Amino acid sequence: MLQIRTPYLIFLGDAHDQLAGKTGVGVAEWRRELCVGQLRLAGCQADAGLPDMTLEEAAAAGAKTFLIGTTTRGGRINEAWQQLMVRALELGLDIASGLHDRVADLPAVREAAALFHRAIYDVRTPHGTFPVGTGIRRPGKRVLTVGTDCSIGKMYTGLALERDMKAAGMKVTFRATGQTGILIAGSGIPLDAVVADFIAGAVEELSPANAPDHWDVIEGQATVLHPSYAGVTVGLVMGAQPDAMVMVHHATRRTMRGLGDRPVPGIAETIAAHEACARVTNPEARVIGISLNTKDMEEEAAMAEIARTADRFGLPTIDPARTGCAPIVDVLRRL
Amino acid sequence: MLQIRTPYLIFLGDAHDQLAGKTGVGVAEWRRELCVGQLRLAGCQADAGLPDMTLEEAAAAGAKTFLIGTTTRGGRINEAWQQLMVRALELGLDIASGLHDRVADLPAVREAAALFHRAIYDVRTPHGTFPVGTGIRRPGKRVLTVGTDCSIGKMYTGLALERDMKAAGMKVTFRATGQTGILIAGSGIPLDAVVADFIAGAVEELSPANAPDHWDVIEGQATVLHPSYAGVTVGLVMGAQPDAMVMVHHATRRTMRGLGDRPVPGIAETIAAHEACARVTNPEARVIGISLNTKDMEEEAAMAEIARTADRFGLPTIDPARTGCAPIVDVLRRL
Repeated sequence: MLQIRTPYLIFLGDAHDQLAGKTGVGVAEWRRELCVGQLRLAGCQADAGLPDMTLEEAAAAGAKTFLIGTTTRGGRINEAWQQLMVRALELGLDIASGLHDRVADLPAVREAAALFHRAIYDVRTPHGTFPVGTGIRRPGKRVLTVGTDCSIGKMYTGLALERDMKAAGMKVTFRATGQTGILIAGSGIPLDAVVADFIAGAVEELSPANAPDHWDVIEGQATVLHPSYAGVTVGLVMGAQPDAMVMVHHATRRTMRGLGDRPVPGIAETIAAHEACARVTNPEARVIGISLNTKDMEEEAAMAEIARTADRFGLPTIDPARTGCAPIVDVLRRL
Repeated sequence: MLQIRTPYLIFLGDAHDQLAGKTGVGVAEWRRELCVGQLRLAGCQADAGLPDMTLEEAAAAGAKTFLIGTTTRGGRINEAWQQLMVRALELGLDIASGLHDRVADLPAVREAAALFHRAIYDVRTPHGTFPVGTGIRRPGKRVLTVGTDCSIGKMYTGLALERDMKAAGMKVTFRATGQTGILIAGSGIPLDAVVADFIAGAVEELSPANAPDHWDVIEGQATVLHPSYAGVTVGLVMGAQPDAMVMVHHATRRTMRGLGDRPVPGIAETIAAHEACARVTNPEARVIGISLNTKDMEEEAAMAEIARTADRFGLPTIDPARTGCAPIVDVLRRL
């Protein structure tokens, strides 16, 4: 499994707004202690709240990896970036990228990495091969974020849970399954790019046997009710053998992302489907709380919706961005 | 999608018994009309019931592909085979193989294929790339074989259904999803080797829009209740959007293959799980019959078990190897 060297220099390029730099901003938000600074080109409108540095200053400050924290128009990497990356490699840094286009496919950068004995981490590409899943139970506790659709906050909920569980004195590790999560955690497996036969096995490897009182918070993907990606989700759920699941739902989204007018499945139906799936490998698995994404709502309406949801399903309900995760952490601590 | 040229010369090597030649024997059993002959080395104990031929005789008889129809100890390919393959390529034949080791990784064979402009089909390796599944309904009817475990007869049931539906005058195509099925059908997609994100999309491509009265019989894989492979199955079921499913069950197997003492899930539970999954993309999907693998039973006990199963689940029940598929073909014809 891939393990990126830290600390990072966060490269924000010429991101035209904060959203275009969201990968780098996210890494700085969740792993401030792993970031020595940020490098921004002329015109960059994103800010990760880190000291601005040149490559040379970052190398002197101990940076080990040049992390591409911005998206590019059409996924292309321009000439100026290539020169920067070559110089970063020369200064002893590795390169990490979650872009669709692989940095390792750029001849100049690949050759420089070879010359300077440095690594390029294209985190969308799985690193190494994985075993077939066994379904055999392993020690340690696991909570998996699941959901009613893609891109609704499963990674965010997982990172917030990790933060609040740690604050509560629990032993906890975030296990990343997507490219942004991997850049934040510094390790993980890009599950959607693993060969079908090995999805569950990859997750068993991602979240290995651990101390009985240790929790893995595993980043969820898609939903078992997704017509395109359910295979990924089901392999993830079965490989995770979760003791607990947190159901993430977008409070105001009505149709599934990228699927025309297909309605988002209901919370009750989605809970039942995930519990049925998870119980194939862990008969005790259950959804123990709901994480409601209310970012498009006003505070008062959002808090009312959170209360209504808790009441309706009889489960502790949070929006980690508004309420933190305390009610769910309480349940996990008692499991 | 891969399309192998026919007719075949079936190569049985020095298979030490009939089972070691089962791929070639299966191709000859289900596609006799696509086979010009068989090539056997000294000591071969398998027989596909085809005329024995040399490479030269096969080429003269019009053979287009040298099909490796035997397994080898440890998946290795010996020197004598390589010389034969090079000669086959020189004579204008392609090579097709379902072995784990790739024929295209043998330098001498690969170079000969390039020299003579011939193809090597390693059917365990997906050919080309696949789209993300859409979940959008498409015309044509589809029946998918599903099951309670791996290696219980989903391919066999699918091929028997195709044969009997054709005999009943229905328009029907077998769609292969595993290496043996692909060699028999001459085309297909090795679903277990597709990248996780594209499983459902690969199946949508494998079974495209068709005439409203045309049936695709889609070869099933594993089970949605399999702790290792359920991701493959779920992607297959959702991509297939089956109008009908036939549940394949091994009448005398008690524990799942390769999973220690894990019991085989029950038929009722497995039907419910597959129907729930299939209804995500086709709300009308249902299991319309049961195919019972009774090969380890005496005739009388087998027929009694088939009758008991039909009675218990209220579904037409067959063992295609004993009874043919008539009761299930009748249901499909009325759908």
